[in-house]
Amino acid sequence: MKTKKSSDFHEWYPEVILSAKLADYAPVHGCIIFRERGYAIWERIQQSLDAKIRAMGVKNAYFPLFIPESLLKKEAEHFEGFVPEVAWVEKKEGDEERVALRPTSETVIYYMYSKWIRSHRDLPLKLNQWCNIVRWEIKQTRPFLRTREFLWQEGHTAHATQEEAEAQVKDALNAYVDLIEGELAIPVVAGRKTKVETFAGAVYTTAVESLMPDGRALQMGTSHYFGDHFPKMFGIKYMSEEDGVERFCHTTSWGVSTRLIGAVVMVHGDDKGLVLPPRIAPEQAVIIPIFKEETKAPVFKKCEEIRKKLEAAGVRAVADYDDAHTPGWKFAECELRGIPLRIEVGPKDIEKAQVTAVRRDTGGKSAIMESELAAKVQELLDAIQSNLFERAKKFLEENTVAVKTNAELKKALDGRKMAKAAHCGGEACEQKIKDETGGGTIRCIPFRQEKVSDKCAGCGSPAKYTVLIAKAY
Amino acid sequence: MKTKKSSDFHEWYPEVILSAKLADYAPVHGCIIFRERGYAIWERIQQSLDAKIRAMGVKNAYFPLFIPESLLKKEAEHFEGFVPEVAWVEKKEGDEERVALRPTSETVIYYMYSKWIRSHRDLPLKLNQWCNIVRWEIKQTRPFLRTREFLWQEGHTAHATQEEAEAQVKDALNAYVDLIEGELAIPVVAGRKTKVETFAGAVYTTAVESLMPDGRALQMGTSHYFGDHFPKMFGIKYMSEEDGVERFCHTTSWGVSTRLIGAVVMVHGDDKGLVLPPRIAPEQAVIIPIFKEETKAPVFKKCEEIRKKLEAAGVRAVADYDDAHTPGWKFAECELRGIPLRIEVGPKDIEKAQVTAVRRDTGGKSAIMESELAAKVQELLDAIQSNLFERAKKFLEENTVAVKTNAELKKALDGRKMAKAAHCGGEACEQKIKDETGGGTIRCIPFRQEKVSDKCAGCGSPAKYTVLIAKAY
Repeated sequence: MKTKKSSDFHEWYPEVILSAKLADYAPVHGCIIFRERGYAIWERIQQSLDAKIRAMGVKNAYFPLFIPESLLKKEAEHFEGFVPEVAWVEKKEGDEERVALRPTSETVIYYMYSKWIRSHRDLPLKLNQWCNIVRWEIKQTRPFLRTREFLWQEGHTAHATQEEAEAQVKDALNAYVDLIEGELAIPVVAGRKTKVETFAGAVYTTAVESLMPDGRALQMGTSHYFGDHFPKMFGIKYMSEEDGVERFCHTTSWGVSTRLIGAVVMVHGDDKGLVLPPRIAPEQAVIIPIFKEETKAPVFKKCEEIRKKLEAAGVRAVADYDDAHTPGWKFAECELRGIPLRIEVGPKDIEKAQVTAVRRDTGGKSAIMESELAAKVQELLDAIQSNLFERAKKFLEENTVAVKTNAELKKALDGRKMAKAAHCGGEACEQKIKDETGGGTIRCIPFRQEKVSDKCAGCGSPAKYTVLIAKAY
Repeated sequence: MKTKKSSDFHEWYPEVILSAKLADYAPVHGCIIFRERGYAIWERIQQSLDAKIRAMGVKNAYFPLFIPESLLKKEAEHFEGFVPEVAWVEKKEGDEERVALRPTSETVIYYMYSKWIRSHRDLPLKLNQWCNIVRWEIKQTRPFLRTREFLWQEGHTAHATQEEAEAQVKDALNAYVDLIEGELAIPVVAGRKTKVETFAGAVYTTAVESLMPDGRALQMGTSHYFGDHFPKMFGIKYMSEEDGVERFCHTTSWGVSTRLIGAVVMVHGDDKGLVLPPRIAPEQAVIIPIFKEETKAPVFKKCEEIRKKLEAAGVRAVADYDDAHTPGWKFAECELRGIPLRIEVGPKDIEKAQVTAVRRDTGGKSAIMESELAAKVQELLDAIQSNLFERAKKFLEENTVAVKTNAELKKALDGRKMAKAAHCGGEACEQKIKDETGGGTIRCIPFRQEKVSDKCAGCGSPAKYTVLIAKAY
């Protein structure tokens, strides 16, 4: 690593991604290649989240990349929210209508729901898709965080009642909290967005937010309640069971994207490179032989034995037998790549029937008796997972400060902190805060309310609730 | 089903897809929605094939949807092969270059390979991606078989030597044979394409072909050897280990798509609807309670017991407790949906501690003692899987006829057969056959050669090899 995280975070971020081979820049502006290690992280996220999605009774489907202009424009506010970033396909001879590349799929999915839903028996209808999304970003793009194409999951559900739909909004958000805290080891704050920050077309938006090392917040996932707004627009009606009257459905949508990989890089990485939480690491342990020419054969043999034992115990273990590089070079390379655990095997280890384990997160070294290998390695991996979470939690707590006045708010944001502040709920005040702090936005109204003051930090009028304010990605 | 497969195959095909809820037409011309049951089949195909792909040492990655015009045009022959179907993104202010939506990804992947490959240590480089593909079809589109967007897997590998690359071409094709015969229960013929039918830019193309009930062949998967053709174009070179000389790599690509789902529908379906091979069926067994009001409670209880037992044994079992419909209605619905096994549970079954199992493929009924439930159900599912394959194999054999003359060839194709014929290898003769038979093409030169004649069935000159000729999808 040429750049240290501690000295130049914004240079460090793309460097660590490229060096750790998570991604590379594509020959098209604003797009990246997900290289095998980066994509493997996404596959682990998919695996974990897909199980949670199925457990909610949601099924996977696939809707087209293409959305006709008329359909996308059907809901004006929704369309306006996306229009600068919508990419269109060049019309060819014979094409009836201009089509867009999906910036999100509400419109095409609701169009189909209006055909599929007839009776209460068709409800709830809960579908999810894993797909690519196109938003023709004009702002500066950054790998994983903002690219013209990204991968995501979008769930879309239709329900008979508001209660059911709102429960779904909550369940989806909770699944994201579990995923992000449990697998990615990133603590989040869950809350509701203000009207200004609500998704185009939604009644309300809930979100999970987390804090990056540069003091900026990153929106990690959102879950929206649409009420019967889209159903009225698209005619999604069902014949109710009790009274045989036609009623509009209540709908929700919710999603997380490959942006999560960017959060993992930012939150856990350090001056030496990437640090990956064991649960989503492509390789959890790397075995490195320490040998001279005369000890090569027995050391390699032992390494392979160790690797197989770990593999059999369900640990994703690899061994590095490349003999063009020194162990020291390999250590640095594994650190760069963020492999959670390094296992060194040399002649002395073999003599003592042990291996030497080195943690990526703390650098802590320990000897593990071969007889206890699988159990101890699993223990260490669990310890690394918890430590990463606790470390990030401590950072979040230490960098979230309660502020009571405009001056304190500005000072907090300038000092790369996230502010916890009372707010009046006014849109003009929200805009004023943004202008005066140079981009500070209300990230959310946390579900867990904690009283900071009776008066709005922005304008001094009576406070309605406590909000989190930060500059954001 | 309004239409019978036996009376109007081409009407029957989309009807069965819509009725069994595998797919629906999208609001964009030539696109479909993969509904949950159709997508579940694709997920099973993915799961099975992904394991085979990993076993070949290939890793998953993800390359962009967008390919710059200059890159796509870099290899003229390749570009020409796709140009009528390429869709382009409307240029926006500030965009430097026009970009295409990937019709296949060789060019962008080779562009990256030229950056990533430096030394023999970087080889072989074997990546695969699961993604959507866009081909702006002008011909009539058909669900799963020909749509403007479809899903596929594309493997792209680079090797130091021709031998290694050719072995990879073969391994990939064998994986497809295993998948298609083993999971989809569709027998295939594997072979090499003639020069005319070779993929744009490849040295040679190998393919697996199968025969549909209307006598048309369907290309199920292809595996291409590119030699060093693209590497020369894109500068994919490595420093060789032995002599330190820079050499060009040898590359391959191979893919199968959601078209496979269409093949499953066509090959196995019948007048009553869909018939799904158990290995890829979203539901393998459906339990249907047979009850009157007074027996409802015990029958439902028993059904749930049976369902849980099957689930615990790894059988994908569902139960249909809907009481708005009669058992007879449900039977028809399950047949339409192609669920391999129907399990009826009524008061008499409960008395005898048994269930009644009905096979979708043969309609065969049998009683299964509850004590043997899991084992017997698994046996039946295996029997259905083999029977579907054997039935399709018999059809393929009976409908592949050896022909020696032009007249016999024409007669075979007119009679909806696939022809096995000697061929001279001449391109003009191949074109003549196509013209004279109204679209008959050489599907492949089967790897398993079987001598039919010394003379070309097309022109009478000395034969070079035996080919399969059919009209194709």
